[in-house]
Amino acid sequence: MELWYTEKQTPHHGITSKVKKSLHTEQTEFQQLDVLETIQFGKMLVLDGMVMTTDVDEFVYHEMITHIAMNTHPNPKQVLVIGGGDGGAIREVLRYDSVERAVLAEIDGKVVEASKKYFPQIAAGLTDPRVEIQVVDGIQYVKENKNRFDVILVDSTEPVGPAVGLFEKSFYQSIAESLNEDGIMVAQTESPWFNRDLISRVFQDISSLFPITRLYTASIPTYPSGLWSFTVGSKKYDPLQVEETNLKSFDTRYYHPGLHKSVFQLPRFVQELLISKEE
Amino acid sequence: MELWYTEKQTPHHGITSKVKKSLHTEQTEFQQLDVLETIQFGKMLVLDGMVMTTDVDEFVYHEMITHIAMNTHPNPKQVLVIGGGDGGAIREVLRYDSVERAVLAEIDGKVVEASKKYFPQIAAGLTDPRVEIQVVDGIQYVKENKNRFDVILVDSTEPVGPAVGLFEKSFYQSIAESLNEDGIMVAQTESPWFNRDLISRVFQDISSLFPITRLYTASIPTYPSGLWSFTVGSKKYDPLQVEETNLKSFDTRYYHPGLHKSVFQLPRFVQELLISKEE
Repeated sequence: MELWYTEKQTPHHGITSKVKKSLHTEQTEFQQLDVLETIQFGKMLVLDGMVMTTDVDEFVYHEMITHIAMNTHPNPKQVLVIGGGDGGAIREVLRYDSVERAVLAEIDGKVVEASKKYFPQIAAGLTDPRVEIQVVDGIQYVKENKNRFDVILVDSTEPVGPAVGLFEKSFYQSIAESLNEDGIMVAQTESPWFNRDLISRVFQDISSLFPITRLYTASIPTYPSGLWSFTVGSKKYDPLQVEETNLKSFDTRYYHPGLHKSVFQLPRFVQELLISKEE
Repeated sequence: MELWYTEKQTPHHGITSKVKKSLHTEQTEFQQLDVLETIQFGKMLVLDGMVMTTDVDEFVYHEMITHIAMNTHPNPKQVLVIGGGDGGAIREVLRYDSVERAVLAEIDGKVVEASKKYFPQIAAGLTDPRVEIQVVDGIQYVKENKNRFDVILVDSTEPVGPAVGLFEKSFYQSIAESLNEDGIMVAQTESPWFNRDLISRVFQDISSLFPITRLYTASIPTYPSGLWSFTVGSKKYDPLQVEETNLKSFDTRYYHPGLHKSVFQLPRFVQELLISKEE
């Protein structure tokens, strides 16, 4: 028998991947959680029928949601990751010696458990003594922790189910208040091909809250359209103004200092999503 | 009934897209040619079961195979497109006032016919008086036309069937001889995720024939992995040395002068495909 997993990334288009076997399936308090073993991308974490990460391409998302902000802030000590229960963003955050405390605020503890079991290389950092795992609603957490963090990464699922509130302006307002006076945030903001309205709206919202707002992209083959966007909101440091010679270099597989500024050079059709907001 | 078209882009992974109807199907002398009307990407040209272009995302490939070379050469007059029977690359070439003659060497005249009928906005340039359509084998054509062209674009299908020879060193050698002494070529060279050996080999081959060899990428959602590579071989002009203020700007949707150099900033795993060849 041939088993294929198909994700309809939109109602009319998707990806399909051959599956060796289903390793895990579970209805958690918040979502359907599946782990599949695929041939092309290795093990695959699927939440509510949407691919979250895979063995083969996880490095792109986790490096790219993390290093732009962490390498722009000159001395990030207190870091918060909202969502990101797989631990991949935390793993990248911990590469910085300056980090004293990295909080993971993940609403669904079952994601953390599944990642530790099936994706040990992604979850590797979660046992580090600097890491504090909070199984909480990230929206509530930022409201209750003001002026605490240098960097906040919003590593959410798609804007359905438990993650809807993570794309709302009131949430970004709380993040702004949870950051220190020179803090910087990054949120994953979906595909420029399939989520144009969302990207425009979030960019506008973050622009109204932060003096410096930027959008960058990365290539992620298992995500819808293969092109993914991230939106930066920063109170003081501009990722385009950092000196390249000051950027830290790590044993990464996608990000490197030479890429730090060029990922902000957007295709024209992506630039146009932001234009009315930049004027 | 729901009709879905699925392309296995590798033996174990692919895309699937909902189809309104099949508009055309034909076995030509060289390949199976289909035109589908999809919901997500509009009309889709499929050759031997592989998506070649779609209404919605065609601009990325056609702009990106064309403008890097055309905007690097200061005065391209004679241009050759090998393959590219849909006419999209020719359309972009014709934006340059310097162009006196643009030859399309396409082996399969049925592709040109189908494009004119179903993709008039892509084929728009094919009736321009500067365009010369040659229904010939591109390999033979470059052998017989030495020292003729300023820019040659290799707009081939995947390296199977009629296009196998378009990825061989002897072909690039013929291209080098068909270019003028300051000529520049670009070839589409597949996905950095799925075609690593091919990219490494072609980069090495082109490096052995041209003093300047560069690789750049673009995001194309209907192509395997969504990330596509292009390899430049140049006798004189380096795309990374052009003055941005000299770059021509057009009413394009992906390419713009600000992107001209940044697309050469490669993710580290792509850089590594080229390293042993650059040493």
